Amino acid sequence: MFDAKSVAVIGASSDPDRIGGRVLRFLRESGYQGKLFPINRSGSEIQGLPAYPSILDVPEAPDQAIIVVPTSAVESALRDAIQKGVKSVVVLTAGFAEINADGRAVQDRMAAMCKAAGVRMVGPNSLGLLNVESRLFSTFSVVLYGVSPKAGNIALATQSGAFGSALYGAATLRGMGFSKIVATGNEADVDVAQAIDYLAEDPATKVIMAALESAKDGQKLRRALLKAAKAQKPVIIMKVGRSELGAAAAATHTGSLAGNDAAYDAVFAECGAYRAQSQEAMLDIAYLVSTTGHLPVNNELGVLTSSGGIGVMVADACGDSGLTMPALPETARKAMLELLPFAVAANPLDVTAQITSVKNGTVRALDVMLSNSSYGTTLAYLASAGLAPATFKTSYEQPFAELKARHPERDVVVVTLSVPEVDRELEKIGIPVFNDATRATLALGAAATIRARWSNLYEPAEAKHEAYKLGDVSTEALAKEALAEAGLPVPQDVLAINADAAVAAADAMGYPVVLKIVSPQIMHKTEVGGVVLNVKNADAVRAAHQQILDSVHVHVPDAQIDGVLVCPMIVGGTEMILGVNNDATFGPMILVGAGGVNTELYKDVSVVSAPLTQARARQAIDKVKATALLKGWRGSAPKDMDALVTAMVKLSDFAMNHPEVMSVDVNPLVVREASAAVLDAVIIKHPEAAL
Amino acid sequence: MFDAKSVAVIGASSDPDRIGGRVLRFLRESGYQGKLFPINRSGSEIQGLPAYPSILDVPEAPDQAIIVVPTSAVESALRDAIQKGVKSVVVLTAGFAEINADGRAVQDRMAAMCKAAGVRMVGPNSLGLLNVESRLFSTFSVVLYGVSPKAGNIALATQSGAFGSALYGAATLRGMGFSKIVATGNEADVDVAQAIDYLAEDPATKVIMAALESAKDGQKLRRALLKAAKAQKPVIIMKVGRSELGAAAAATHTGSLAGNDAAYDAVFAECGAYRAQSQEAMLDIAYLVSTTGHLPVNNELGVLTSSGGIGVMVADACGDSGLTMPALPETARKAMLELLPFAVAANPLDVTAQITSVKNGTVRALDVMLSNSSYGTTLAYLASAGLAPATFKTSYEQPFAELKARHPERDVVVVTLSVPEVDRELEKIGIPVFNDATRATLALGAAATIRARWSNLYEPAEAKHEAYKLGDVSTEALAKEALAEAGLPVPQDVLAINADAAVAAADAMGYPVVLKIVSPQIMHKTEVGGVVLNVKNADAVRAAHQQILDSVHVHVPDAQIDGVLVCPMIVGGTEMILGVNNDATFGPMILVGAGGVNTELYKDVSVVSAPLTQARARQAIDKVKATALLKGWRGSAPKDMDALVTAMVKLSDFAMNHPEVMSVDVNPLVVREASAAVLDAVIIKHPEAAL
Repeated sequence: MFDAKSVAVIGASSDPDRIGGRVLRFLRESGYQGKLFPINRSGSEIQGLPAYPSILDVPEAPDQAIIVVPTSAVESALRDAIQKGVKSVVVLTAGFAEINADGRAVQDRMAAMCKAAGVRMVGPNSLGLLNVESRLFSTFSVVLYGVSPKAGNIALATQSGAFGSALYGAATLRGMGFSKIVATGNEADVDVAQAIDYLAEDPATKVIMAALESAKDGQKLRRALLKAAKAQKPVIIMKVGRSELGAAAAATHTGSLAGNDAAYDAVFAECGAYRAQSQEAMLDIAYLVSTTGHLPVNNELGVLTSSGGIGVMVADACGDSGLTMPALPETARKAMLELLPFAVAANPLDVTAQITSVKNGTVRALDVMLSNSSYGTTLAYLASAGLAPATFKTSYEQPFAELKARHPERDVVVVTLSVPEVDRELEKIGIPVFNDATRATLALGAAATIRARWSNLYEPAEAKHEAYKLGDVSTEALAKEALAEAGLPVPQDVLAINADAAVAAADAMGYPVVLKIVSPQIMHKTEVGGVVLNVKNADAVRAAHQQILDSVHVHVPDAQIDGVLVCPMIVGGTEMILGVNNDATFGPMILVGAGGVNTELYKDVSVVSAPLTQARARQAIDKVKATALLKGWRGSAPKDMDALVTAMVKLSDFAMNHPEVMSVDVNPLVVREASAAVLDAVIIKHPEAAL
Repeated sequence: MFDAKSVAVIGASSDPDRIGGRVLRFLRESGYQGKLFPINRSGSEIQGLPAYPSILDVPEAPDQAIIVVPTSAVESALRDAIQKGVKSVVVLTAGFAEINADGRAVQDRMAAMCKAAGVRMVGPNSLGLLNVESRLFSTFSVVLYGVSPKAGNIALATQSGAFGSALYGAATLRGMGFSKIVATGNEADVDVAQAIDYLAEDPATKVIMAALESAKDGQKLRRALLKAAKAQKPVIIMKVGRSELGAAAAATHTGSLAGNDAAYDAVFAECGAYRAQSQEAMLDIAYLVSTTGHLPVNNELGVLTSSGGIGVMVADACGDSGLTMPALPETARKAMLELLPFAVAANPLDVTAQITSVKNGTVRALDVMLSNSSYGTTLAYLASAGLAPATFKTSYEQPFAELKARHPERDVVVVTLSVPEVDRELEKIGIPVFNDATRATLALGAAATIRARWSNLYEPAEAKHEAYKLGDVSTEALAKEALAEAGLPVPQDVLAINADAAVAAADAMGYPVVLKIVSPQIMHKTEVGGVVLNVKNADAVRAAHQQILDSVHVHVPDAQIDGVLVCPMIVGGTEMILGVNNDATFGPMILVGAGGVNTELYKDVSVVSAPLTQARARQAIDKVKATALLKGWRGSAPKDMDALVTAMVKLSDFAMNHPEVMSVDVNPLVVREASAAVLDAVIIKHPEAAL
């Protein structure tokens, strides 16, 4: 649909500022070379072009129909277009699924019509699409009044037209160039995932920006992102709009910590994409990679500056962004001092104000740095040199071009206040220009992060598939049974139906023990006095049993009491949490993190997609700060990491085998020197599968 | 020195691009109306002005002398200038204290000379100063080749000239206007603190930007910041350059967590200033406040947008910045739906694309929002409307002006892609324009944070001053004694010199107990096997005693062993940390945070200046996440907050009374339901006071 050679504008208007007129106007003014057929019931000529009352009257079948008629007339216009034999349709008109159920019904009929005819549709409620190179501007976006996108290697796929217009408008003002732009709107047919899939194969596209509010099909999005990564095209995404959490999911820690937004984060990271936190950050990253033509070869940064303060500022930003600033190697230090005896020959390299006394000193210093180090990127802070284009041309342009020719695989980023002509000249030789050192550093860090992700892309593991029907898991005792069956390390707890049974169980188990209430109505046992720790003998068991029943009776008088769970009192070890959240978009997501009270206090967790390999589980565990406690903290013996890894993989398999499970909390899972133990567990099934 | 009516340029050159020539050139071209006296040994005329071989030959005493002669000639030039009777001196020449001890000696002599004569000096190694209104440009900054600062209400005080030039260069390109700019360089006399103090009184200045690498005098900086806050002038600071930590200080957790950088953070917050994380963020905040003329009246934000995605993006940024987006009040909702029946009448308010059908719809909707809510600020997202200045003028300018007139105390911020003329028009009526919604929101959050800080400014408490000489505190036992004397809740531990004594102590204390090695050479006791917990009877005490001595002998064979400390085994309660770091710039800083292993894992701490009031201690404690555990966590009984507050204030008094104390760790301080207890403590004295 980006390659249409002829376009019918159904609903074209003579007023070039009304919506239907604007579409035609932009196509006429953009420089589009294909044929244009304005369609309007009344007119025989619109904006100087011959017009037709219906698309059916057009002498040939146009490749594309753009529909801008009022909502009520869209369906019949679409029918006519399909009948005429168009290959693609862009429906700009709004008023469908985003309004109400009637609108959704019409939209669904339209989608079915297109599918049956093999016609692709963008929209409805879309701001359209642009093939910037061929000047096919199938849109009515008012941003085109102010800017005209120029051709380049960046593509944009956006759900929201307003959001997307702001993005390519701002990008165009910065001098960035585009290949293709598409706003998918209601996504009755083409969605953002599909657009990414297409752009991954598009030769004109080197970098993909995407903006989405939600994805209908998580697997499709995963596949599209992986395809782009394997095609070596960075995907930078803005994901806005936080999904509501289901009530049942939010009842567990995992439900709130591994919710839909965290699932998107995990999937983007696993599939080699990068989530930008603001429009500007997104543009910075796309600009950087679009200009250099590749991701930095590593995450090492060398910095050249004439101000110590700037160097430290960049170093601070590195810490936030995943870049490192390794020390200047000794060979580089010596060569640098030969060239610039007055310099602080370190990383950051401070060339001081005396650099002006050395001809081409800055660029020669960069050459010394690149020739004697492994830095993938050097950042050169040139203060305000870029404000004087004449001087800049003579002092910097040629030396920079030669530098880049000597180090084609390495990147040079310039930070300077500048006029656009200086920017354009440097960009031509592959050097991006930023006005702010912090923003340049953060963009470089993002690019290096994408490279790291590409070397560790998600490959779904084979889940051990032994699906069996899950029984009632509405209490701790039943949940633990199910997890024990799934292979998690659950201690031999005993459900006691009265005090005598509790004493017998404790005697057999050995003291001290823990007593806990068991009731499907009581999830937060501690809060109703339903737990007594460290019970040391038979008398204490009887007392604790009574105390629990009394307290629960006061707090939850109507609770169904299944009994009291007698558990061994396990002391020592490190408390972790494992969890499952069955995400509506992406399926089961697995959480690991600091357990006990720290789960809630510090949200020190890591979330990954199921199914899991041992290796991916280990990576996730390594991202948790509390994992340091398992690795021989301050001279103590290391804990049983393998037991934790295995438990996480087993939990992932459990989640894959039981799609009816919405959410699981295993908290705490205590990890000790030679074992791990599930001390508490909650399983929430999907409401429809709750029994 | 900003008001000099006549200036001598000592070292003026005929070449307008050499340093000495540039100063004269900038003064001539800036529009400065005062008298200029070029001083140069050789010439009788420089750049068309009569020149003099020495300042002593000038027919009158100039108000100011700018010195740009080579380093070796600076001292005599200064002597001549003082003799001639100048009131202020700006020394641009470098090569003094920043180079070596000889340079420092010359610089010190120059400072003494100025002081004796009552002459103020900026520099040496300074990029000079600018009074933008009177066009006194006493600088050779190359940024002036590219931009000419325009007059406005923002002042800039910067230590680094390069950093400062980049800032005012970038600000000028954005259309921001300045009152005064000064680069203090080596700060032999005038420093950034003094500049802030001056600017706090300067009627032309409404907003102060400051950039510093370090402050010589912390108290002076505190006073200057408080003065500016009380004068209602926001101070936005970039602080770069992290100080090295003393070896002794870094030996404690507090030393690393409450180091010099954290002290600056604490002092800025206490004194009503705001620390920006990048140059651009600093400019954003200054631009915002400079344009509206005041801080927002509260931290409530109302958002108007035509795109749901943008609204959510702003909401996300609010969460990061301390702003809130309260729901649209019911009266506002009703009025809004009357005006715009198609709108999503909430906060954010989505006016949808249909807003174009309502005349002045956007501004009228903002009026409804402001008239029916307490939102201090409204943010209006106008997409790319600002790119079409003609349309913007007719559709928005007058309505916005009327809106501002109706709500003079409230702020309106516009986010749009725009051309400069649109920005300038809106700025004239007090409406700042941003191109990026996230940046606008973060700047608003910073401004609201400054307002909150102004209502809670630091007032040094009276420390209970009962200074007494501190004895040897080189072991846990001795440190705890000193803290007990200072009023902290230290349990009755017993130092046992052999196994028999340990058993006797444990018998008297009651079991279980804890045994710990006591040696001035052993700070990390656990790591050398120097601690045994939960010792349950006399035999176990003997065994533990032997085990400790054996292990310590293996790990630290040469350690001096004072004995073994017998302590009650305290279980339960919440582990916190209290600490002191005697900062080289600001004096004793007090730390409170999550204790035990969480101190290192999560750095969940809060740092404040000593001396402390109970109220300030409580505020600091409230900023620690782990404090939630003290306040009735999940139905448990609240812990003894008063005991923690009192311990913190006592520790602050202890630090004020003992300036020889460099660093203290009390970790953990266990807080229980009705008490608190110091379970471990380390005190590090200044090396010179170590005995």
